[in-house]
Amino acid sequence: MSDLLTRRTRLLGPNVPTFYDTPVHIVKGEGVWLWDADGRKYLDCYNNVPHVGHCHPKVVDAIARQATTLNTHTRYLHEGILDYAERLTAKFSHDLSQMIMVCTGSEANDIALRIAQAVTGKTGFIATDNTYHGNTTAVSQLSTRRPPIGGYPDHIRLVPAPDTVRPVGGTHDGQADAFAENVAHAIRELEVAGHGFAGLMLCPTFANEGFPALSPGFLDPTVKVIRQAGGLILCDEVQPGFGRIGTHWWGHEWLGFAPDVVTLGKPMANGHPCAALITRPDLMKTFRDAFGYFNTFGGNPVSCAAALATLDVVEEEDLITKARNVGEYALERLHSISHPLKAEARGLGLFFGLEFVNDDGTPATDFTARVVEAMRENDVLLNRIGRHMNTLKMRPPMPFSKDNADLAMDILDHVLATTPYD
Amino acid sequence: MSDLLTRRTRLLGPNVPTFYDTPVHIVKGEGVWLWDADGRKYLDCYNNVPHVGHCHPKVVDAIARQATTLNTHTRYLHEGILDYAERLTAKFSHDLSQMIMVCTGSEANDIALRIAQAVTGKTGFIATDNTYHGNTTAVSQLSTRRPPIGGYPDHIRLVPAPDTVRPVGGTHDGQADAFAENVAHAIRELEVAGHGFAGLMLCPTFANEGFPALSPGFLDPTVKVIRQAGGLILCDEVQPGFGRIGTHWWGHEWLGFAPDVVTLGKPMANGHPCAALITRPDLMKTFRDAFGYFNTFGGNPVSCAAALATLDVVEEEDLITKARNVGEYALERLHSISHPLKAEARGLGLFFGLEFVNDDGTPATDFTARVVEAMRENDVLLNRIGRHMNTLKMRPPMPFSKDNADLAMDILDHVLATTPYD
Repeated sequence: MSDLLTRRTRLLGPNVPTFYDTPVHIVKGEGVWLWDADGRKYLDCYNNVPHVGHCHPKVVDAIARQATTLNTHTRYLHEGILDYAERLTAKFSHDLSQMIMVCTGSEANDIALRIAQAVTGKTGFIATDNTYHGNTTAVSQLSTRRPPIGGYPDHIRLVPAPDTVRPVGGTHDGQADAFAENVAHAIRELEVAGHGFAGLMLCPTFANEGFPALSPGFLDPTVKVIRQAGGLILCDEVQPGFGRIGTHWWGHEWLGFAPDVVTLGKPMANGHPCAALITRPDLMKTFRDAFGYFNTFGGNPVSCAAALATLDVVEEEDLITKARNVGEYALERLHSISHPLKAEARGLGLFFGLEFVNDDGTPATDFTARVVEAMRENDVLLNRIGRHMNTLKMRPPMPFSKDNADLAMDILDHVLATTPYD
Repeated sequence: MSDLLTRRTRLLGPNVPTFYDTPVHIVKGEGVWLWDADGRKYLDCYNNVPHVGHCHPKVVDAIARQATTLNTHTRYLHEGILDYAERLTAKFSHDLSQMIMVCTGSEANDIALRIAQAVTGKTGFIATDNTYHGNTTAVSQLSTRRPPIGGYPDHIRLVPAPDTVRPVGGTHDGQADAFAENVAHAIRELEVAGHGFAGLMLCPTFANEGFPALSPGFLDPTVKVIRQAGGLILCDEVQPGFGRIGTHWWGHEWLGFAPDVVTLGKPMANGHPCAALITRPDLMKTFRDAFGYFNTFGGNPVSCAAALATLDVVEEEDLITKARNVGEYALERLHSISHPLKAEARGLGLFFGLEFVNDDGTPATDFTARVVEAMRENDVLLNRIGRHMNTLKMRPPMPFSKDNADLAMDILDHVLATTPYD
């Protein structure tokens, strides 16, 4: 372990992030399970990238079969990307019917910004003040975890993220309007500064923001403001997408709005580097006329085979229904937890948040960190999110079962009962 | 075919680039060979992505084996990325000893720009006026094939690309100094404009610029100028790297200079979406202190297995020596070609250029285009490059043999003898 950390610092440099005080050394995965080098078995309650389960044989077979046959690029014709685009776009409404395939969610969001720029002729973007949409130069300017190199640029405005414990505008009922007012204010600022308003980028479940409990319709006042200003809605479905939320394929369908651009990433091909952008033909044409985009690896036959197999498994194993049912069951157990610092339990399908607040109303950040470490010591992998990192984040692979949920919740009960909180 | 093109436009939108007047529909690859849907077999003289040959069984096996075992991310410890980093960085000198793994050359170059920005505190970059380094918002600003959306920004300066037929400064002997003078002038402009000079990004073989015939030492006067100004040299090895040029692992070793940052892409994992950046520990530390970079798919165990297997095959099959020997042989045959429009044949290992100029000295762009199409009709896939797209580009997979070279050159002889040129 210490040898691995030493080699890592020597070969990769300092500050390369790991999870946990003592990082885990994982060597094997299967379904919802991970094993470390000592043979210790962990229940994976965190990873959404292995969407249909770690090392799902159908996805592995699809990758191996296509890699044995052909792996080129989209400058030659190939049915793989077309078959996948047909299947994927059929899952969307709102005329979201055309696709660009890339390799990472960051690349997809980087294009999304340029589509908005090409379509509106403006350069100003809005995001929330506690978000992450990716790591390219352009996209990192919308992120608040760490300032982008060169500092925050003037053409980006960040509005307060929604929150259920400390709602924007002070009240839960007024939060949707308060959020929209802040967006309207940011738009005016961008217009006054001469940038104009190109678009708002958001995750429809505000996952990095802390995954606040919101209701469908929350974004309606904001959508109205954006439409009036002529900007685009860029919807980052990297976390909620592909049925994670149990009731719908996409977060925006659950929240109930029509995005102009949707971006997809992590879970798309069960871990194979693959991401995509979906938009309307009119917007795609404007972008494609303005910029000759080509991505060497994007949409290659192996990536398409991996993505198609992942989509097949979601459907064949009815994983969205399963996510809803298991999710409802696990959320009931979260709701039933009694703990002095528990502020709120929330969930959508197989995405859960459990927020802790101290007696004096301050976020219980340290306690939440201790719970994450204790869960890992009890062989359950999860993590935490939110502005104050005081919300447990559980987002297991989709085959997560009722038994898996019981195991995770039993251990959580034990950890909460034994972790000191004052 | 027409059905595929119709589906493609419907699902991917307009202006999605393809090769050839009638695009090829490739369904199978093996070694240096590609097959289309009608069973027609093509000699691949173009693709560098399948570096050790299409569908090399050792790389396919490595991908399949690792995908069956585990595919996660670098927030958990894993030996795969460390084993690969150790093997890869051992191929570099100049204290280039630390690595970031990403998914595309564009992502690597996007980071390279930020390293220069973090290290120098400046924002001005220089590239040549006929290049391509990738497709992110930031990197596309350095490319000249099509203006970036929003127009060319003021902090990017483009200097005339070297050229053997029409050298910078007018003479071949004076070209190295003239190139350096233009870089010095651009640095002064960036300083006067208040951006300052962060770095120069270049491909050490100027591949997209037309792959001009240059000699080792060409960059020496430019390096001196850059060092005096305090900027970084960002070396894009996506095309020359991994032994393509036959005499060295990297283009900068051949040209004879010490870059601060090296980026790698296309051939790195034989088609699996994988790319990397290599730099010195001091520069890595500055970047890692300034920005919390993490890439979900970058450096995952499967990508590392694919990259390691590709490196293994390069060594086990002695492909660099082979590239030098076959390259020398093929270049002799190119030199022996007699054609009224032939201006220059050039080559380094398995990268070749054959430039055509009309009687009146203008670039023979149309003729070169017809040659590319005629080669494809004769079952040889290649393409063209350069400012005027009047240079045939041949860059086959590394297992390309003397027999393959003879076949390609025999067909080229035939095509040149039968393609009208006036």
